[in-house]
Amino acid sequence: MRAVDIIIKKRAGGELSRHELQFLIGGYVAGDIPAYQVSAWAMAVFFQGMSQSETATLTRIMLESGVRMNLAGIPGPFVDKHSTGGVGDKTSLILAPLLASRGIKVPMMSGRALGHTGGTLDKLESIPGYRTALNQEQFRTILARNGFAMTGQTQDTVPADRLLYALRDVTGTVESIPLITASILAKKAAEGAEALVMDVKYGSGAFMKEKSAAQHLAASLVKTGSELGMRVVALLTDMDQPLGFMTGNFLEIEETLDCLEGKGPPDLMEITLALAASMAVLGGQAQDIAAGRLLCAQALASGKPRQLFLNNIAAQGGDPDQLLSLRGTYRSPAQEQIQAVRGGFIARIDAGKVGHAGILLGIGRSSTEDTVCPTAGVQFHKKAGDPVSGGEGIMTVWAKDSASLEAARGQLRDAVEYSDSAPAPRTLIADSIGMPLP
Amino acid sequence: MRAVDIIIKKRAGGELSRHELQFLIGGYVAGDIPAYQVSAWAMAVFFQGMSQSETATLTRIMLESGVRMNLAGIPGPFVDKHSTGGVGDKTSLILAPLLASRGIKVPMMSGRALGHTGGTLDKLESIPGYRTALNQEQFRTILARNGFAMTGQTQDTVPADRLLYALRDVTGTVESIPLITASILAKKAAEGAEALVMDVKYGSGAFMKEKSAAQHLAASLVKTGSELGMRVVALLTDMDQPLGFMTGNFLEIEETLDCLEGKGPPDLMEITLALAASMAVLGGQAQDIAAGRLLCAQALASGKPRQLFLNNIAAQGGDPDQLLSLRGTYRSPAQEQIQAVRGGFIARIDAGKVGHAGILLGIGRSSTEDTVCPTAGVQFHKKAGDPVSGGEGIMTVWAKDSASLEAARGQLRDAVEYSDSAPAPRTLIADSIGMPLP
Repeated sequence: MRAVDIIIKKRAGGELSRHELQFLIGGYVAGDIPAYQVSAWAMAVFFQGMSQSETATLTRIMLESGVRMNLAGIPGPFVDKHSTGGVGDKTSLILAPLLASRGIKVPMMSGRALGHTGGTLDKLESIPGYRTALNQEQFRTILARNGFAMTGQTQDTVPADRLLYALRDVTGTVESIPLITASILAKKAAEGAEALVMDVKYGSGAFMKEKSAAQHLAASLVKTGSELGMRVVALLTDMDQPLGFMTGNFLEIEETLDCLEGKGPPDLMEITLALAASMAVLGGQAQDIAAGRLLCAQALASGKPRQLFLNNIAAQGGDPDQLLSLRGTYRSPAQEQIQAVRGGFIARIDAGKVGHAGILLGIGRSSTEDTVCPTAGVQFHKKAGDPVSGGEGIMTVWAKDSASLEAARGQLRDAVEYSDSAPAPRTLIADSIGMPLP
Repeated sequence: MRAVDIIIKKRAGGELSRHELQFLIGGYVAGDIPAYQVSAWAMAVFFQGMSQSETATLTRIMLESGVRMNLAGIPGPFVDKHSTGGVGDKTSLILAPLLASRGIKVPMMSGRALGHTGGTLDKLESIPGYRTALNQEQFRTILARNGFAMTGQTQDTVPADRLLYALRDVTGTVESIPLITASILAKKAAEGAEALVMDVKYGSGAFMKEKSAAQHLAASLVKTGSELGMRVVALLTDMDQPLGFMTGNFLEIEETLDCLEGKGPPDLMEITLALAASMAVLGGQAQDIAAGRLLCAQALASGKPRQLFLNNIAAQGGDPDQLLSLRGTYRSPAQEQIQAVRGGFIARIDAGKVGHAGILLGIGRSSTEDTVCPTAGVQFHKKAGDPVSGGEGIMTVWAKDSASLEAARGQLRDAVEYSDSAPAPRTLIADSIGMPLP
């Protein structure tokens, strides 16, 4: 067997066998197959795609390259949630304690901010003392006691994905639906999730700008998950404007608390409850989405999810009292208000532009080596559809330093679009694949 | 500028600028751009192609990566011929002395056998003592004195092509028309050719099986050559059965002598004279193909090309007298005759199968590290269209050893197809791009 023949087979649109994929990917992880053959294969996959069973096989091979989280002895069900990334998206932080409060275990392995999208680990680490690098025993203990635990990938977690993702990132082969599918599902299977709710976002602030591409990815995740014995539900959600009123690492922790206290912004709560309801159904706690939604709304109102969130902070090295005392004051010193340049209505706040400005402010990173600033961020006072007078404050911005603020200002101003009449409201949840919407 | 953005631009079907191609290819040659980015780009080129001017730009960048042959002080015109590779194709060996006898300089830089196709350098090196690794001064001296010289690529000749070709060979990106075009034309421009006749072959024994692919390559070579100021004529020729009666390194030197003595096989002579006539026109020695053909036939009959061929052998380290004494006897000891399994007509002798059997016999090589055997080969006693009786000899085979003969026998037998009536003759020269056929 030669790698070049495997590449040529894929180039011609052929379906690779388990043996061929194992030779290529296993060989790459072992250092026997050079990166230049794997990148050529990945580009051929970009153009020719993979069949459903081929994608499932690749996922299995990637999963087998590493160590699976051992959750034996902890009662399930284990249900996780994953998003393709957005701006102001803190739903994971709300969902984990919310579902844990209903007896569903959420073994959450998250990522970091990259490009214009935020990262759950960076948000959590904005809490002084919070540690996201848990070893297996710490993860097990916190998960068993608290119902959820938050960690990052280690060197041992799906090394094939770590290597392949780093290679795809520099070879223009990230945007391949089967490769994205295998990358997500291998990591979720490795952390021990039995079922998964996917938030597949589309729009200017999403990884996928087009709804049709998001639909393809959603279908691929649901079908491939099914071949792997993992039930997957995928919601297609709008990421045209930032979710909620806050974007920024610590700011989003604050907004998470708002949501857990019943004061969450409507757009953020609508998406959170839809995701929560799907997780409740997958975890066997509700018959259907409508029942799941009611259950989760009641759970939130009980205050238990808020307590579990604070318990988790204590368990992972933070200080809940300090967190609550920092609320509303823990901000970068470079601050400015962006004001409306005219009156009328806010037609749109472009999430992509806000996200890219966020890299400059210190919220995100343009390469994996960059560090982020916990206290940079944007608080929105207006959202699409709101009436506005000229000179009124639209957002307050905090940057890691004044030069960054200077650099981001133009893009933030450009992100705001105005209209004379109220814009038509956008549908927040366009579709649910794998489970009917109510 | 980032390599990944260049890859993504090509992936989306964009046209790369000179600056972008220089960044990628120049950076690769300098060791600044890793192979895994170049292979991903090459695969994107396979799927998306390149525009005509982009191909010309790539050719120039590749040409500029190395040292051009300095032919200053030698009177031209300099016209070369190149083939996409075939089985039994010794036309270069005949053409060089033939055109040199008419005052056209042929600065020939050739390749080696690879896969099922033969290589001019390997054929020449089957002559005891013959050296193909000439330095620039030796090449200039022999070219000036004898009208042609035969050499291989050195480390300094188009290093971008050497590196890129080696990478394409192992990443499934060889079969890209713009990349093939740039590779051929950069080498031909580097050796100092002002005009070029291309023999683009199609059929079972050719690199391109389909005539349509050969037509695309021919058109690309002619148009790109024109952008580079090099006049290119491309003949589309049939490579469905081996050319002439001989395949094998020394056997083809013998058949070259036969042709130079006016005893060449009809199919080989038809293609040789068509290529020669095109070269004569490009070199300004004839008004059109018909006149060029007459001129070259007369030149052959004069015996001067034969003398120039023998002179070249002496100039490049061989012994013409020894060559002539070895004629007809310099053969590998493992010998066998393949006989007709039935009577009727030879419908076809599959050049692809003969070529692949040739790798086993010792004529060719499956990887660049393999060595070839000078005295292995096949002599055909019958060709497509010939009547045959059961048991009659179709070919005599010589292998480097008896195990190789054993291994190749089945494929050689399979290469022969029979019919009850005479098959329709195949057209040997399907088209000429860049100059009308008579």
